[in-house]
Amino acid sequence: MTDPNLSRRTFLAASAAAATAAAAVSGSKAGADDEPERAKLKEGAVVLFQGDSITDAGRNRNAKGANNAGALGRGYPMLLASELLRDHADPSMKVFNRGISGNKVPDLDKRWEADCLAIKPDVLSILIGVNDIWHKLNGRYDGTVETYETGYRALLKRTMESLPATRIVVCEPFVLKCGAVDDKWFPEMDDRRAVARKLAEELKLTLVPFQAMFDEAVKTTPPQYWAGDGVHPTLAGHSLMAHTCRKVTGI
Amino acid sequence: MTDPNLSRRTFLAASAAAATAAAAVSGSKAGADDEPERAKLKEGAVVLFQGDSITDAGRNRNAKGANNAGALGRGYPMLLASELLRDHADPSMKVFNRGISGNKVPDLDKRWEADCLAIKPDVLSILIGVNDIWHKLNGRYDGTVETYETGYRALLKRTMESLPATRIVVCEPFVLKCGAVDDKWFPEMDDRRAVARKLAEELKLTLVPFQAMFDEAVKTTPPQYWAGDGVHPTLAGHSLMAHTCRKVTGI
Repeated sequence: MTDPNLSRRTFLAASAAAATAAAAVSGSKAGADDEPERAKLKEGAVVLFQGDSITDAGRNRNAKGANNAGALGRGYPMLLASELLRDHADPSMKVFNRGISGNKVPDLDKRWEADCLAIKPDVLSILIGVNDIWHKLNGRYDGTVETYETGYRALLKRTMESLPATRIVVCEPFVLKCGAVDDKWFPEMDDRRAVARKLAEELKLTLVPFQAMFDEAVKTTPPQYWAGDGVHPTLAGHSLMAHTCRKVTGI
Repeated sequence: MTDPNLSRRTFLAASAAAATAAAAVSGSKAGADDEPERAKLKEGAVVLFQGDSITDAGRNRNAKGANNAGALGRGYPMLLASELLRDHADPSMKVFNRGISGNKVPDLDKRWEADCLAIKPDVLSILIGVNDIWHKLNGRYDGTVETYETGYRALLKRTMESLPATRIVVCEPFVLKCGAVDDKWFPEMDDRRAVARKLAEELKLTLVPFQAMFDEAVKTTPPQYWAGDGVHPTLAGHSLMAHTCRKVTGI
């Protein structure tokens, strides 16, 4: 592979990604010895997590500094940051969380200049989509699957044009069938997940298959164990996300 | 090994433990594929972290429930809990943090019935000692190395008598040479560390060699990266502690 875009923006086909997620789940339970070789993050790499409440995870929004436990929240960004900072041991690395509870694609779009482009991340992880359907089900939003696709594609293209060297990671939106998640979510939730996967493939971005990962996890442990309300992960769920995100991206 | 006490309370000799810590540090940087087989934690295992501010790590003391991210703080107990809950995937497992900032051995002793014995942990991790010297250097305490040894031994023996089936993990107190830690701490800090190691050997308890681990880490990365004031770990430092604690205990 001589095209740097191919190595930088590895696309993982859906089936391979699902297999990776399954291996992450079953492997971790068995006492994983299958940690991949770590991809090199350049010295002083900037890693940014973007998204909604799942990413936000109770972070202190007044703490703007990098690598601060409070500013990183109590979710998968903080857990992943703790591993990156430990294993890369690079004092010039910077990890930020800019997820905001309740956000949908149009909310990210409005704050993208300050909260993403200006930060110039080397690795950008985005998890967005669950509020785009949840708020619609609640009657607080009228965006369709097509709105989600159009808006998300535009956001990703804008990012790729502004930050051509940035590795963009598209996290698959997910729900677990418990708590607030009932039959009304389907099949639209599946259609929206398919959009995220389609955009990752179309734009040759890394996809992290969180739905496949949780589908595997609930085969042996009740969904409430991983996300009490079906949307917001428990500590165990966030840990599984951090683990799979790291395995899939190799950072 | 047919004696259950030997398998339950594995004593790791200092040299082997230091080698493990070194491997944990260097291995994790290289992209570790040397995860040990996980020891079986019985279904419904109760894991308790005890100690001072390093263990407390800003936990919400009003949240008494198990496995709650806020109640577990922002330090190594929460990071380790996130991995245990993920990998063991046991809905009946309970992980608690009862570290309290500023505590010394006599403070643990006063609250031991309610904050340890009544919880009946299957695994009990204790990290105590840095305030026993720090508060003495500050003129707020007059305990000596001998006081530390006598008090700590009594606390451990009391625990072993009350909870004979509990696996007790003695974490080596540590400091890094930066921030608040200057020459006045030595050699007394070394003497106090030696007490913790001696008690672990004497009582056949697992020792987690945090000082050896940090000594290895600072060979390549400045001490401030792991603990800004030389006493309280950063997120990277806490992550290294969680990683080493898990490797050494095998849980």
